[in-house]
Amino acid sequence: MIVNCAVYESGQRREGELPLEQAGRAARGGDSFVWLGVVEPSAEEFQAIAEEFDLHELAVEDAVKAHQRPKVELYGETLLVVVKSARYVDTDEVIEVGELLLFVNPAFIITVRHGAGELSAVRARIDQRPDLLQHGVGMVLYAILDQVVDGYEVGAQGVDLDIQEVERQVFAGDGQNPAERIYKLEREVLDFHTAVAPLSGVVDEIARGHFEVVPEGLHEYYRDVHDHLRRVEGRISGFRDLLGSALHANLTQVSVRQNEDMRKISAWVAILAVPTSIAGIYGMNFDNIPELHWRYGYPMVIALIVVVCSLLYLRFKRSGWL
Amino acid sequence: MIVNCAVYESGQRREGELPLEQAGRAARGGDSFVWLGVVEPSAEEFQAIAEEFDLHELAVEDAVKAHQRPKVELYGETLLVVVKSARYVDTDEVIEVGELLLFVNPAFIITVRHGAGELSAVRARIDQRPDLLQHGVGMVLYAILDQVVDGYEVGAQGVDLDIQEVERQVFAGDGQNPAERIYKLEREVLDFHTAVAPLSGVVDEIARGHFEVVPEGLHEYYRDVHDHLRRVEGRISGFRDLLGSALHANLTQVSVRQNEDMRKISAWVAILAVPTSIAGIYGMNFDNIPELHWRYGYPMVIALIVVVCSLLYLRFKRSGWL
Amino acid sequence: MIVNCAVYESGQRREGELPLEQAGRAARGGDSFVWLGVVEPSAEEFQAIAEEFDLHELAVEDAVKAHQRPKVELYGETLLVVVKSARYVDTDEVIEVGELLLFVNPAFIITVRHGAGELSAVRARIDQRPDLLQHGVGMVLYAILDQVVDGYEVGAQGVDLDIQEVERQVFAGDGQNPAERIYKLEREVLDFHTAVAPLSGVVDEIARGHFEVVPEGLHEYYRDVHDHLRRVEGRISGFRDLLGSALHANLTQVSVRQNEDMRKISAWVAILAVPTSIAGIYGMNFDNIPELHWRYGYPMVIALIVVVCSLLYLRFKRSGWL
Amino acid sequence: MIVNCAVYESGQRREGELPLEQAGRAARGGDSFVWLGVVEPSAEEFQAIAEEFDLHELAVEDAVKAHQRPKVELYGETLLVVVKSARYVDTDEVIEVGELLLFVNPAFIITVRHGAGELSAVRARIDQRPDLLQHGVGMVLYAILDQVVDGYEVGAQGVDLDIQEVERQVFAGDGQNPAERIYKLEREVLDFHTAVAPLSGVVDEIARGHFEVVPEGLHEYYRDVHDHLRRVEGRISGFRDLLGSALHANLTQVSVRQNEDMRKISAWVAILAVPTSIAGIYGMNFDNIPELHWRYGYPMVIALIVVVCSLLYLRFKRSGWL
Amino acid sequence: MIVNCAVYESGQRREGELPLEQAGRAARGGDSFVWLGVVEPSAEEFQAIAEEFDLHELAVEDAVKAHQRPKVELYGETLLVVVKSARYVDTDEVIEVGELLLFVNPAFIITVRHGAGELSAVRARIDQRPDLLQHGVGMVLYAILDQVVDGYEVGAQGVDLDIQEVERQVFAGDGQNPAERIYKLEREVLDFHTAVAPLSGVVDEIARGHFEVVPEGLHEYYRDVHDHLRRVEGRISGFRDLLGSALHANLTQVSVRQNEDMRKISAWVAILAVPTSIAGIYGMNFDNIPELHWRYGYPMVIALIVVVCSLLYLRFKRSGWL
Repeated sequence: MIVNCAVYESGQRREGELPLEQAGRAARGGDSFVWLGVVEPSAEEFQAIAEEFDLHELAVEDAVKAHQRPKVELYGETLLVVVKSARYVDTDEVIEVGELLLFVNPAFIITVRHGAGELSAVRARIDQRPDLLQHGVGMVLYAILDQVVDGYEVGAQGVDLDIQEVERQVFAGDGQNPAERIYKLEREVLDFHTAVAPLSGVVDEIARGHFEVVPEGLHEYYRDVHDHLRRVEGRISGFRDLLGSALHANLTQVSVRQNEDMRKISAWVAILAVPTSIAGIYGMNFDNIPELHWRYGYPMVIALIVVVCSLLYLRFKRSGWL
Repeated sequence: MIVNCAVYESGQRREGELPLEQAGRAARGGDSFVWLGVVEPSAEEFQAIAEEFDLHELAVEDAVKAHQRPKVELYGETLLVVVKSARYVDTDEVIEVGELLLFVNPAFIITVRHGAGELSAVRARIDQRPDLLQHGVGMVLYAILDQVVDGYEVGAQGVDLDIQEVERQVFAGDGQNPAERIYKLEREVLDFHTAVAPLSGVVDEIARGHFEVVPEGLHEYYRDVHDHLRRVEGRISGFRDLLGSALHANLTQVSVRQNEDMRKISAWVAILAVPTSIAGIYGMNFDNIPELHWRYGYPMVIALIVVVCSLLYLRFKRSGWL
Repeated sequence: MIVNCAVYESGQRREGELPLEQAGRAARGGDSFVWLGVVEPSAEEFQAIAEEFDLHELAVEDAVKAHQRPKVELYGETLLVVVKSARYVDTDEVIEVGELLLFVNPAFIITVRHGAGELSAVRARIDQRPDLLQHGVGMVLYAILDQVVDGYEVGAQGVDLDIQEVERQVFAGDGQNPAERIYKLEREVLDFHTAVAPLSGVVDEIARGHFEVVPEGLHEYYRDVHDHLRRVEGRISGFRDLLGSALHANLTQVSVRQNEDMRKISAWVAILAVPTSIAGIYGMNFDNIPELHWRYGYPMVIALIVVVCSLLYLRFKRSGWL
Repeated sequence: MIVNCAVYESGQRREGELPLEQAGRAARGGDSFVWLGVVEPSAEEFQAIAEEFDLHELAVEDAVKAHQRPKVELYGETLLVVVKSARYVDTDEVIEVGELLLFVNPAFIITVRHGAGELSAVRARIDQRPDLLQHGVGMVLYAILDQVVDGYEVGAQGVDLDIQEVERQVFAGDGQNPAERIYKLEREVLDFHTAVAPLSGVVDEIARGHFEVVPEGLHEYYRDVHDHLRRVEGRISGFRDLLGSALHANLTQVSVRQNEDMRKISAWVAILAVPTSIAGIYGMNFDNIPELHWRYGYPMVIALIVVVCSLLYLRFKRSGWL
Repeated sequence: MIVNCAVYESGQRREGELPLEQAGRAARGGDSFVWLGVVEPSAEEFQAIAEEFDLHELAVEDAVKAHQRPKVELYGETLLVVVKSARYVDTDEVIEVGELLLFVNPAFIITVRHGAGELSAVRARIDQRPDLLQHGVGMVLYAILDQVVDGYEVGAQGVDLDIQEVERQVFAGDGQNPAERIYKLEREVLDFHTAVAPLSGVVDEIARGHFEVVPEGLHEYYRDVHDHLRRVEGRISGFRDLLGSALHANLTQVSVRQNEDMRKISAWVAILAVPTSIAGIYGMNFDNIPELHWRYGYPMVIALIVVVCSLLYLRFKRSGWL
């Protein structure tokens, strides 16, 4: 589905949308460029676009199937940049990963989106910077990558907060076992890392000026994106280490707490075994147990039981077992 | 065993099969090429082929023994590409790994298969693309590698589903201990990774144009295979991390559940110790235990026991121990 | 907020502070250079400075937001070096990480500080070395980096002491469970490492003479900083390994100690079960239990109980269970 | 001890052994070469050889002491290749590591063996290939390396079988704790890896033609050895991962089994506590316990005990605790 | 403190010690060289030496403070090599790490020692090799490095023996918990590795002939040191893996042994619960318990108790629980 088709001329968006065929013609014309935005196209839809803009057979397959690894690939004069967008869904503690395929040519940029990764904010942003838009499509590509990486930062922030919450659960001492939550977070972080990590090489390659479509004046901007990307990547790697340690610490905490419960119960059983034992002795039927006939035999035995149990109780208390 | 022997001329398969000697002659002729398909050949069988097509002594040994690491090696003008095929057998949760040895020369391609890795689908597919077949054997090699990597994707998908199932078992709370299953999956994933990982370098080397047999127009196709391969490889690496964490989380879950059982049993033992204790006291034979002679002594003691046990029960219940 | 603005001429600080505009003019003049120190500037404040000194748009954004990864970047003639300062707060066992952005140009050095990282000590130090100051801003940059790395050493020292304390807790045998403390330290060390590790590449790049602003005579100084940095980095990496092992050893120690408690309690319960058992037998109401009528029946049974319990006690003691 | 001294001329072994001095002279002569085989020489023995063949002082020290890392080193015109041989001793589950030092020069090859690594099979094998022997000493070196790597394969196979056996023990459920065996295997695998891993770089260096003694026609043979080596190496690395996981899984299995035992015992104790409790109540000496005087009081209580115990038993059985 | 000052002329030590100033003069003279040995110098002491021999300011700071990472650095014509010496103190199971700073110049070698690392053996050794001494200071540097690396080998040997001892403790089955010892060894090994690992790069750089002070004829000697170094390094890395596994195996063994104790105690409690239960029943006060009036009631019950307890005992014994 085509969601947007605009022509940019000397840093300004030309008024109004235009149909696909005119877009193709505009792209072949002078120093303007076309931005064509497509969302989850069908094979036929995209075939039409590919013919209009002369895209490579393999690229078309990628654009429709959309299960690519982030990469940059030059097909003839057209650059294909594949990027994973990430959106943090806080309610489910899930990173929603979308895919953006960007076909970039001096004369056009075609953005194919699958899943998360709305680009309208990018459109609004570049409209306000006619000075930079004069660098052409390279600037649009930068603006998109910049937004994608900002999305990673937000995602990483969300994961960070969840990890802090999990840490509190691990050490809270109120009997929770967040093992499943930790594991699920590990899985999310792994998926997140898989989406983010390969992009670093892609942006680096662009920043080093391997592709003509990005003029030299923009390299600093791409290096800036690259720095942000490495920061996010480092942070996500750190999450993996942290969650691994948290899983380990959780095992310790859980087993400590459960052992404490067992120790408490066992201590009480031990205390209760004292009266049973002593009373058992005076429940024997020997003809000749002198204590049984003492006047204060019974209260003395009761007192003995109370004293022994109290001593045990105090000792257990002092050991921190009760 | 020779399973297939065909001559391709200007993108078309020539009708009918042909015997080995004619194949050799056809290979030495003009701009056509021969595809010879062999399955688990005996030393003698392959020796004949090797002589007909002038293959290197070491290559012959490899083809018959078939315990190679994925590799690409140039013997004179003939390229030897060794690839592991993978097939996921869902019933056993096992990755079945086969081996394909591909001898590629401008004039012929000899495919030697051991175990899994049927190539008839490839044959059907290339028959439908005469335009690409004009690139010669390089295209056939691409089609085979593409199918092998697709097989990896299917395998990875199967493993992924199994891992999700195992995760459910780990956190299900119904007393299962899937430690053995996790371990077995780890083993499978390890074998899978060993089969897949070295291929990446092989395909990369071909994609970079190190070998004349693959003309430049096909490099993009090999780069595409390379990208898919790295994606699968990344996924399989992720599986290893996940299974490691799952084994760890499983230990936590199993020990938590077993401790819960023990705590429950111990709590009941503690409750049962109360009547034993109290009754023991009134079972003593002292001459002078006034309570024994009270009218409601017995029901009062029974009531006391019931009250204490109930309090204990409620407290244990509230602590989540029962 | 501008905290300092000084002009250095042929190795000497010119007397008195001077306002921003004059600083800009001084920077454009002869062989002197300006050091402008800013702390957590607002966007407007820094915009004024950026215009005066002609700083790059992206650099300005970085300076105000300050969430950069350590890096070195050349914008035109001006070098931007981003460094993380670290200060160890012993009371909280926390590494406080600040950020320093250093804009370095033959004619000026602008230091932007966020959080920890006071530079007045650097100022005092360079005032005493007019001989080195003749190397210009490169020497100031060195002095700042040197102080930052010294701060890392102090931080690493603090963490080391904490780890030693935690080790004592782990093996002390007095029932402590420092799992949470170990985990928190792991987190601190991870953050510390993230702050320190990327700086190594930055300093190395400067030491190799990639930037004109640092003349050759100073390279040895930067290599010295680089060596110190790698030493600290190696130490911090070691901390991660140590804390991982400590967490593991702690699990062993904690579970050993808790098992010892349980064993002790259980051993006492076992000892107490002996009199209960024996007394139970002589509490039976059979008509015909000869022992009951023996003269010394009762003392003999008591003696039996004492002997059995003592034997058990001794055995348990010898096994180290009590 | 000199165990073998032969002269090879144009691919044939000259009949009969010959003394050391003549060997030296033969080596200095025409297009033949000498193979001198030595086993664990004393310092004096080897000194004589070194002088005869003009070996480097450091090489001599290495040959006598024999605690080298696999390496290749060029001393003047003579190549020193150090290789570790491996032999799997199944009865002890031990990899026996020997050391081979190979001094290779166009005119001679001196093989010094310490420990495992018999070379007589190599001698027999090269005698049958006069065609290859014309490549000179390079072929002998290849044959030795090929045999050594074959030995690694056999060793890896042996370790693999042991690991499979250990896996069966881990998951067998018959109460074994193979922790020690797993650990010992880890140690063996570590030693094995240390012996094998550095050889890969050595063979690669030779295969790339860095040394004149190995003519170009043999490079393919060395690349073949290199491939086998990497396969073995990958396999051994895999063993380490597997054994790590096995140790972990074993902890889970052992603690599960032991907890099951404890749960079973505790469940029986809980069942036994029921009659004790109920009987205790009817053993009280109250004047007024009506049940005591009922005609069927006794059988009813016995029935009550049986019913409660049976219910408990069934419930525990259903929970899988008994 | 200056401990040694000698002049070497054409491979011979000139008789007698000489004061610092003359040493400086000798160093500036012809083809002899000076070896000045210093131990833990004060700032003033070393300042004098630095002036006499014209050492760089930064090098002086390093020499006095001595907390360097192993490195090689060229200051003008003088090479500074920093090396960590290691000495194994068996009684404390501690690697004592010292520091050697070696200032090497064609005309002199100044050795500054902090802590362990006596050099008198080196002095004795080089006195006996006038032939090699003709290579000048490069030979002295080699002899020192060779001795340092030999010290590492001895240290690694000591650690190896300790690890073997710890392994025996882990699997001995006599109730030891060597967790603390394993952890301490891990710490030692980590420190050891930190001291050894960076030296490899240093020696490699010298062996490749980056520095003029080491003439080509000595490169083989340095490569030999480099090989030994990598062997030690590999061994120390192996120790880390082993100790990690040992810590893990220890957890298994300790928890197995403790569970066995608990199982044994619980089994005895279960056996003791049998007489308590049965006797409790015949201690009830029902009017009508026929067994109580049987002639052989009492012995029969005792027999019953004995039989049940024996059966339990045998069953527990057979299960390996007692």
